[in-house]
Amino acid sequence: MTDTLPLASLDSVTALSLPCFDDTAAEAARARQLDLTKPPGSLGRLEDLAVFLAGWQGRVRPAIDHAQALVFAGNHGICAQGVNPFPQAVTAQMVANFEAGGAAINQLCALNGAALSVVPLELDRPTRDFTDGPAMDEAETLAAMQAGAAAVAPEADVLILGEMGIGNSTVAAALAHAVFGGEARGWVGRGTGSDTPAIAHKAEVVAHGVARHAGSSGLGWLSAVGGREQAAICGAVLAARLRRIPVLLDGFICTASVAPLWAADPALLDHCLIGHASAEPGHRGMTEAMDKRPILDLGMALGEGSGAALALGVLRGALACHNGMATFAEAGVSGG
Amino acid sequence: MTDTLPLASLDSVTALSLPCFDDTAAEAARARQLDLTKPPGSLGRLEDLAVFLAGWQGRVRPAIDHAQALVFAGNHGICAQGVNPFPQAVTAQMVANFEAGGAAINQLCALNGAALSVVPLELDRPTRDFTDGPAMDEAETLAAMQAGAAAVAPEADVLILGEMGIGNSTVAAALAHAVFGGEARGWVGRGTGSDTPAIAHKAEVVAHGVARHAGSSGLGWLSAVGGREQAAICGAVLAARLRRIPVLLDGFICTASVAPLWAADPALLDHCLIGHASAEPGHRGMTEAMDKRPILDLGMALGEGSGAALALGVLRGALACHNGMATFAEAGVSGG
Repeated sequence: MTDTLPLASLDSVTALSLPCFDDTAAEAARARQLDLTKPPGSLGRLEDLAVFLAGWQGRVRPAIDHAQALVFAGNHGICAQGVNPFPQAVTAQMVANFEAGGAAINQLCALNGAALSVVPLELDRPTRDFTDGPAMDEAETLAAMQAGAAAVAPEADVLILGEMGIGNSTVAAALAHAVFGGEARGWVGRGTGSDTPAIAHKAEVVAHGVARHAGSSGLGWLSAVGGREQAAICGAVLAARLRRIPVLLDGFICTASVAPLWAADPALLDHCLIGHASAEPGHRGMTEAMDKRPILDLGMALGEGSGAALALGVLRGALACHNGMATFAEAGVSGG
Repeated sequence: MTDTLPLASLDSVTALSLPCFDDTAAEAARARQLDLTKPPGSLGRLEDLAVFLAGWQGRVRPAIDHAQALVFAGNHGICAQGVNPFPQAVTAQMVANFEAGGAAINQLCALNGAALSVVPLELDRPTRDFTDGPAMDEAETLAAMQAGAAAVAPEADVLILGEMGIGNSTVAAALAHAVFGGEARGWVGRGTGSDTPAIAHKAEVVAHGVARHAGSSGLGWLSAVGGREQAAICGAVLAARLRRIPVLLDGFICTASVAPLWAADPALLDHCLIGHASAEPGHRGMTEAMDKRPILDLGMALGEGSGAALALGVLRGALACHNGMATFAEAGVSGG
């Protein structure tokens, strides 16, 4: 595997030289919006999304010709604490379902024109139980980040990220608790099939695990309480940034996965949108802390990138209007 | 024009014999959702939408093979009261823009696969100023309803409704104030380009106009303070119901247009969804009164059916998952 990210250590992430938003392209896109045959601002967030894509793609008329979706999968030692009612074998079963085309993410990617790849990450070698010690050492964490980065297609013009991993709603809650603070139980929800006593147990495991690694910071949290698919998501986000590819994050677990990047420097996520507000109660706290308003709010809590793949349709709508509408002058309509 | 609706008078709308939701098909669709490879309920509203479409189309696996979008356009005598900064000529200019393919609704229908028709309704003969007398007489109202009904394609399996008409945000506020009560100013917003003094003036016109027609009820409000495109929307909603075609209403004006149907009998709207929560402040009060939660909330306030056409993408996502996903048994995944 080629090392896509020039990253010698986890701490060096803040030293990366990363492209910034192109204000000139964005201003020109905003001016174009004012010329289109509609009252100014009447397309609401569609206008903002078109300008966002213009700024990151660096062109007045951004396009989505190569939408890529990546689903990373991993297994987690924290399952030894009984945080999940399903066996870890389900992770590999669902990977097989993705590869056979039978999951929700397959249907939503096909509908909205995204090329889907599934990247299983050493499923037969779960991370360590983070209540016992760091989930991964630094080399393992960097390797998973590089795997995520390497999966990003150079020609992608938007990147959808998702995940699958039995036990990873507990990992996500731990990352959120570590980075955003508060009470552990504020970040813990049903995940897949937990009932009220199980949720209380998950919260205790999260509180205990995060306390054990007190003093960690930034991407150190990925090693301490994260997992391979979380690290791969961070790597893919950075690789996308290096190529000015805007990113659509999915819901609760995907957003928590990038919390360590936010902790290192919130600007590392400037090119990222959040596709869907998860029904997991902890998601709202994260998106508010990150000051990122999800595009959709449809009560979904599946993961796999499903909420982001659905939100791709909204991005396509924003660009269809931005690039396809007539201007007042072209249409001979008064009021422009 | 063939009379599509068996409607001899406005009052007779409550005597129409209309198909109801197919509980058997809906139950079977709900059961199928529980078999698909995902935690129960994890697709949130997508699951509810699939079941809704199953119940109205009367089949376990509903489909959208013929999505139709209708945009009705009309002109309004209430413009004599100075409620709008734009000349009424803009209505015809925008109709020409729809016909030439340059408007937002054209792009969104093309993106999401809806066949768009624009139906201008006697643009050179505006309704009467409703502060002087009824906007339309009963025959005019019924004729506009029949025009709306006649435009519905028999083969449509989902119907998107939108409107265009300079001055019609004032008409919409009047319909909402008439049907849902409250203060006139609670239903009045910016519309297209009104500033704060203009909004206060609109509210006075609405209050005065509705008070003048006190004692009206049900579809009588369409005649009293409505317009031709509002009546056409009501006619299309009824024609769709007769054919079990689910309807996606757009935002503020489109929702207000069907308020007289709701006043006659809320069940007349059981087959209708609301595509988008308008940025016009009065929309929220209407959707809460009707107990219909909009699918999208993206700050749009354009009309034309644009919010509904964008929401069609969510319906397509719901059906892609419902019809395309593997069951637990098919995929060999544990936990079904």
